Amino acid sequence: MPSLPDMTTPQVAELARHQAEAHPAHPTVPQPDEGQEAFFETLLRIGDSALVLGHRVSEWCGHSPALEEDIALANVALDLIGQTQLWLGLAGEVEGQGRSADDLAYLRDAWDFRNLLICERPNGDFGHTLMRQFLFDAWHHELLKGLAASSDPRVAEIAAKAGKEVAYHLERSSDLVVRLGDGTEESHRRMQQALDALWPYAGEMFLGDDKDAQMAARGIAPDPASLRAGWDATLRHVLGEATLQIPASDFAHKGGKQGIHTEHLGYILAEMQFLQRAYPGASW
Amino acid sequence: MPSLPDMTTPQVAELARHQAEAHPAHPTVPQPDEGQEAFFETLLRIGDSALVLGHRVSEWCGHSPALEEDIALANVALDLIGQTQLWLGLAGEVEGQGRSADDLAYLRDAWDFRNLLICERPNGDFGHTLMRQFLFDAWHHELLKGLAASSDPRVAEIAAKAGKEVAYHLERSSDLVVRLGDGTEESHRRMQQALDALWPYAGEMFLGDDKDAQMAARGIAPDPASLRAGWDATLRHVLGEATLQIPASDFAHKGGKQGIHTEHLGYILAEMQFLQRAYPGASW
Repeated sequence: MPSLPDMTTPQVAELARHQAEAHPAHPTVPQPDEGQEAFFETLLRIGDSALVLGHRVSEWCGHSPALEEDIALANVALDLIGQTQLWLGLAGEVEGQGRSADDLAYLRDAWDFRNLLICERPNGDFGHTLMRQFLFDAWHHELLKGLAASSDPRVAEIAAKAGKEVAYHLERSSDLVVRLGDGTEESHRRMQQALDALWPYAGEMFLGDDKDAQMAARGIAPDPASLRAGWDATLRHVLGEATLQIPASDFAHKGGKQGIHTEHLGYILAEMQFLQRAYPGASW
Repeated sequence: MPSLPDMTTPQVAELARHQAEAHPAHPTVPQPDEGQEAFFETLLRIGDSALVLGHRVSEWCGHSPALEEDIALANVALDLIGQTQLWLGLAGEVEGQGRSADDLAYLRDAWDFRNLLICERPNGDFGHTLMRQFLFDAWHHELLKGLAASSDPRVAEIAAKAGKEVAYHLERSSDLVVRLGDGTEESHRRMQQALDALWPYAGEMFLGDDKDAQMAARGIAPDPASLRAGWDATLRHVLGEATLQIPASDFAHKGGKQGIHTEHLGYILAEMQFLQRAYPGASW
């Protein structure tokens, strides 16, 4: 149980005072250099995508169509949130301002989040959730393969650990996409609809900016565009078997990686951050 | 525009310090006497019901089936939130602890809310929202008639003002319930479904406890049970014209008035309180 304040009406002012004492306003820490800024940003992009998708998937807990799926989805969510802790923990270390993974997860507002827009899409039906997961997993798997070869040993270590989990995520979502895509007329229709609806949110995964270029040049993270071929191959294979049609359009919504989000992220954060916002500094 | 901090990453610690300075931990204010406690609680029940229903109705803003309905619903929501400000403002005055209406609205957690459970029910479809509104308005109208005759002049004054608005709310929701109930087969079916679904949440309006008894004895507020006859008469008239069947069951969910809520209230508060929780002390 979290160590919630033992009272019926929160003494907000008192909590706030403790919080203020624990986090002095002007700590004497080194400022990040130019390179650290892009590195920090890149780690936020990876960590925030895992966090926001993890939170979305956790919304299924207790609502899945079958007990096994409920447990499996909850496990995927837990994996993603566990990875978040590693990525955002490293981000805080790289930033050098004394912020912890929890600070970054619970005390930033929407414009400071750097997740891909596809991660904040609403769950829709079970098929929609699985299609989103498959499109993400196929990219995530390629990304982590690249990151496992990072010139930064901390990145390589986290990526190797996360890569094992994500290989399993991808196996599972691929399997279910095939079963539902090549299932009944109704399940096929829904999976095609989900693919068509989510397609415009897939392209952002492969769009790079100057920060990505810096990371690629330093060998810390792969160039986003370089992940496309592997992703395309996975999609052709799995969606072909699922008898689903890959949309022809190459239009891509973008902005998440730069902090420009859809209306959905604010609602996610309001729920996700409530405890730390209402009880500053509360811990387990 | 609200005076949000001018920065991309909120300086939570600094905001918290300001908030802590503005609200000293142990202000020297008089404690409420026994009578004030029941009075405070009663004002929370009235104010919180208006606030939570007002927030629910505001969720329709921009989503109604017709522009006129969109504006009308938004106006009802605004009326309810305006009334909240008066009731919770008076509650803070009666409590005598220096809490403002804003403090009460934005800095309490679910267990301190005293709204009727019907107010936190999800919106459902447009017909469902209107049926909830009608059931509430018919009670609210009776309540305010009683409160307008309160022995406390502050209560009587607020009730007289709010009563005019609520007479209009009731006129409007009655009219729409009749039009949809006695409309097409589909609209009739939906309205009957809404009435059946919401019925178990109506009975709580008329359940009294010892605090209600104290208030009635002091002439401050009417005995909840005394409002039933007028409410029944309105229902018979309007639902009869709407060709809808009043359910026979007298089962009533309860607990809201004592702070025992459904799972929905926490989500409402997470959204509603985000700004004040994330930016303590922010003002317009």
